[in-house]
Amino acid sequence: MERRSFLKKAAFTGAVIGLSDNIVAATVNIRSSAKIKLRENDVVLFQGDSITDAGRDRKASTPNTSPMMGSGYVILAAGALLHQYADKRPTIYNKGISGNKVFQLNDRWDTDCINLKPNVLSILIGVNDFWHTKSSGYGGTAAVYEKDYRALLQRTVTALPGVQLIIGEPYAVKDVKAVDDSWFPAFDEYRAVARKLAVEFNAVFIPYQKVYEEARKHAPASYWTHDGVHASLAGAQLMARAWLQAFA
Amino acid sequence: MERRSFLKKAAFTGAVIGLSDNIVAATVNIRSSAKIKLRENDVVLFQGDSITDAGRDRKASTPNTSPMMGSGYVILAAGALLHQYADKRPTIYNKGISGNKVFQLNDRWDTDCINLKPNVLSILIGVNDFWHTKSSGYGGTAAVYEKDYRALLQRTVTALPGVQLIIGEPYAVKDVKAVDDSWFPAFDEYRAVARKLAVEFNAVFIPYQKVYEEARKHAPASYWTHDGVHASLAGAQLMARAWLQAFA
Repeated sequence: MERRSFLKKAAFTGAVIGLSDNIVAATVNIRSSAKIKLRENDVVLFQGDSITDAGRDRKASTPNTSPMMGSGYVILAAGALLHQYADKRPTIYNKGISGNKVFQLNDRWDTDCINLKPNVLSILIGVNDFWHTKSSGYGGTAAVYEKDYRALLQRTVTALPGVQLIIGEPYAVKDVKAVDDSWFPAFDEYRAVARKLAVEFNAVFIPYQKVYEEARKHAPASYWTHDGVHASLAGAQLMARAWLQAFA
Repeated sequence: MERRSFLKKAAFTGAVIGLSDNIVAATVNIRSSAKIKLRENDVVLFQGDSITDAGRDRKASTPNTSPMMGSGYVILAAGALLHQYADKRPTIYNKGISGNKVFQLNDRWDTDCINLKPNVLSILIGVNDFWHTKSSGYGGTAAVYEKDYRALLQRTVTALPGVQLIIGEPYAVKDVKAVDDSWFPAFDEYRAVARKLAVEFNAVFIPYQKVYEEARKHAPASYWTHDGVHASLAGAQLMARAWLQAFA
């Protein structure tokens, strides 16, 4: 296995990571100096909503085990990380909870993030901040999402100096069930907020919207997501591959 | 995505596939001409015992979905296959059942194999054929395993001419819980039977025992398997990567 130097920390500059490697040639800007360096015994935490939760057993408390990971992109990404970085003995948690919006992450952040002391924190949140304004009468806006998300990230880097951040782009795949024309361009504002915050907080940014748009050139959108929001198994792998490109 | 020619069928010669690509440099004989060619709309079926079952929802009947796959090597391998071969639209089933020995596969073979008309059939069976002689008073021997397994394979290729076979080596990782010195060399006979049958039936052979032995150079055996038989999430990825090397 390749040995890497962990002596110098990378300078993080809000890098945009390339698309899922097998499906598409990367077309977005990759700044490899800003990729995540996984170090010995690092704690990796996945946070988010149902896409991250993916039916995990919420009573499962043991990191690195399947029941904690659910059956979405997290189990696929975690499996790959545990294998590729076996020498580093990572400790991986999934604490995504279905239905969450950004303010709900904030409500449980001490227990489900800070206290776990992650060295690498991956967040994918935002689709419900928009979707629930349509489906459940939620009163938030993109501005509220931005304000709440920035406060959450500020709280995080204050409590966890040196944490390496991964921010996933909220995505919605048009013309699949739940996602119709009425989502756009309003939903694009939420995508832009996540991207802006990734730059502000020197996070690696995973452009899931583009990942899905490229993938539908190879198979219909419904092959990758059954409702436009939640990934199929094929879509979960698509996301996992894109996510893994965050690592050097 | 790379386009492959599916005009000529590969000559199968009981190839031995290399070890998990990320962990080790391949050291075993790889005959790439004998690898599996996945064709448009191929049906891929995973069969086996608890290692394959891995807690899948046995009521789940929809191929290519997470509930059917469980949380072991199958979900990781299936995700990768659905992604890598999206253009081919594979249909993937998992019908592994915990506790099965080879004669129990035979009992349910019409329903859980033949009727699904797989083009690619992956079988991992044998650890219980040995283990249950120690733990449950099962009276089988390696000779019975060989006889039953050969009959099952003969029945399969008769009913499904042209099926491409993958045979996984039964493995047991010593010094982890269930697996102690008393397993060897008796258990090695079962490994040898699987390898012999792979050659007889022109199957691709996945040498899981060697995959695990190489992996323990990178992390303790208990990192890869909690009891010496069932894979951890890291071990599941190890197996999935080795399995995926069966494909051209």
